[in-house]
Amino acid sequence: MAPVRNARTVFNSVPTGYPEPGKTTVYDDTKTIDVDNVPLNGGFLLKTLVVSIDPYLRGRMREPHIKSYSPPFALGEPLTSHGVGVVVRSELPGVNPGDHLYGFFTHEEYSVRNNLSGLMKITNEHNLPWSVYVGAAGMPGKTAYMAWKEYSRAKKGETAFVTTGGGPVGSLVIQLAKLDGLKVIASAGSDEKVEFMKSIGADVAFNYKTTSTADVLAKEGPIDVYWDNVGGETLDQALLAANEGARFIECGMISGYNTGGQPIRNLIMVVAKSISMNGFIVARLQPKYDAEFYATIPAKLASGELKYTEEIWDGLEKVGDAILAVQKGTNKAKVVIKVADE
Amino acid sequence: MAPVRNARTVFNSVPTGYPEPGKTTVYDDTKTIDVDNVPLNGGFLLKTLVVSIDPYLRGRMREPHIKSYSPPFALGEPLTSHGVGVVVRSELPGVNPGDHLYGFFTHEEYSVRNNLSGLMKITNEHNLPWSVYVGAAGMPGKTAYMAWKEYSRAKKGETAFVTTGGGPVGSLVIQLAKLDGLKVIASAGSDEKVEFMKSIGADVAFNYKTTSTADVLAKEGPIDVYWDNVGGETLDQALLAANEGARFIECGMISGYNTGGQPIRNLIMVVAKSISMNGFIVARLQPKYDAEFYATIPAKLASGELKYTEEIWDGLEKVGDAILAVQKGTNKAKVVIKVADE
Repeated sequence: MAPVRNARTVFNSVPTGYPEPGKTTVYDDTKTIDVDNVPLNGGFLLKTLVVSIDPYLRGRMREPHIKSYSPPFALGEPLTSHGVGVVVRSELPGVNPGDHLYGFFTHEEYSVRNNLSGLMKITNEHNLPWSVYVGAAGMPGKTAYMAWKEYSRAKKGETAFVTTGGGPVGSLVIQLAKLDGLKVIASAGSDEKVEFMKSIGADVAFNYKTTSTADVLAKEGPIDVYWDNVGGETLDQALLAANEGARFIECGMISGYNTGGQPIRNLIMVVAKSISMNGFIVARLQPKYDAEFYATIPAKLASGELKYTEEIWDGLEKVGDAILAVQKGTNKAKVVIKVADE
Repeated sequence: MAPVRNARTVFNSVPTGYPEPGKTTVYDDTKTIDVDNVPLNGGFLLKTLVVSIDPYLRGRMREPHIKSYSPPFALGEPLTSHGVGVVVRSELPGVNPGDHLYGFFTHEEYSVRNNLSGLMKITNEHNLPWSVYVGAAGMPGKTAYMAWKEYSRAKKGETAFVTTGGGPVGSLVIQLAKLDGLKVIASAGSDEKVEFMKSIGADVAFNYKTTSTADVLAKEGPIDVYWDNVGGETLDQALLAANEGARFIECGMISGYNTGGQPIRNLIMVVAKSISMNGFIVARLQPKYDAEFYATIPAKLASGELKYTEEIWDGLEKVGDAILAVQKGTNKAKVVIKVADE
């Protein structure tokens, strides 16, 4: 077979505020690959099916000298994020054509990999769409499940407040909190997301853009567990509305990602109310919870016991726009880029 | 015996910034008490020996409608704080003249109490000065001991950063951290306190008013345990200098007590570095650790194994100035008001 297109999306420049599609990231469809003959050197050829667009990717768009928990993107190189792909050819023992792999993918249509570093096989016995393995059955789902298990110390009858409850992390947190018998207050940035949050069980769901978070928490609080994906003023309101001994699970602070950070003014409440606040990176919880997660969550997603939503964007040329939508919150659900069919 | 003076220090007005002696608090020596004949109504007469001046008292000087972890002072009524006193007369079974009691005292020379609520007997078998029972062997000592035990998860070879290391809480934390085999960085606001911190074992001690906290932490960090008594910019620097998995013990944030609070800008590091941050009020830890504390700490203080300093101010007329000194940090050591000899 003749060489085929091997399009990719490249990190082109460090943004100062919101990322700019076409400037921060550039779609490049000039490369080709000879799928049948490209040398594998003992490795394997992977065809990318889906890649995930997540809030934390903004933090990787930085100058390389700045340290953080995830590595910076390399200028001129393809972006990387979680993905699912299928093995086309292999010289690596134990890896066979047709195997599906989940893990860190470069934003390329095809890539040659030396080994399984950062990847794991998925068998998909419940026949979920592959996209779900980068969403509710992937990193965002693990984020919700593992940190809720590790840090919430949830007790029946308590009250939880979940931010970005329309997203893949928050929506699973809402459902886990309901399964544990909590009253759940949930916020998101659109009326459509509010409806979705109600449909999955949130007792109180509101659009923070049109309803005062402070008013809702004053009426529906105090809160015992706070799931923070946003930081900034919302975190400040949660600190004021916290119960004594509240647990704050610090998953992310997107309100500051494109603005250089939002100051927090009510942190004294951590002292006054004996609050415990735990930040985490899901990768550090995986060794403890990965087996339990895969043994339970995909089945519940397939049966409908746990619900999810997703928004599929078509092709790597959409990566830049999709990243911006996630940073601005204009997406409607978990964003996945579909790169190819099987 | 004729009635004697029963001086007191009264909360007179809510301060906006730093408390003002003579305005915020007023010394009143017009009251008298007939020690021999004052009716006890089944209670007992307590003579105040010492009362404690602590940073948290600023938080009690507030409008009564504002909720916080400790009750507001009542306008026109005596201040209250930890103290030690001796029973003069008693009608309460189990309470006898000569008994020494520790707990919450009104700022009066004498008071009639109905019961032992908020008080406990101390036997002082190690012959410590009574003032120590409101310092290293009292609430500040418990604060250091109990929270270090509960939250530090200290491991030999790690690094701790302790703020207000010249005070009664910080200085005990420094010594507990050294006993656990940690490298200790400690800060305070005067060169005299720096010398004291070195004398009790701090590996690195500095005056934050003349030396850059950021520079010290960049050179001597990263830090695994942060003992926070100050909040504000120092907390922001500690967040930047924290190691992955660091534990932040949030004891107080005095930098904001007289200014309406200091914003925190680097809280995203809680997420990025998987930091756990625990606020606490010592009263909530006491049921778990009180027996252990009294069984070990007073003996070590008496033997000199653990060191402490204190600064004795004479008479309730000094309460206003003493509170201001503690808020401004111009005191040299733990401040205790000596109200009377035995």
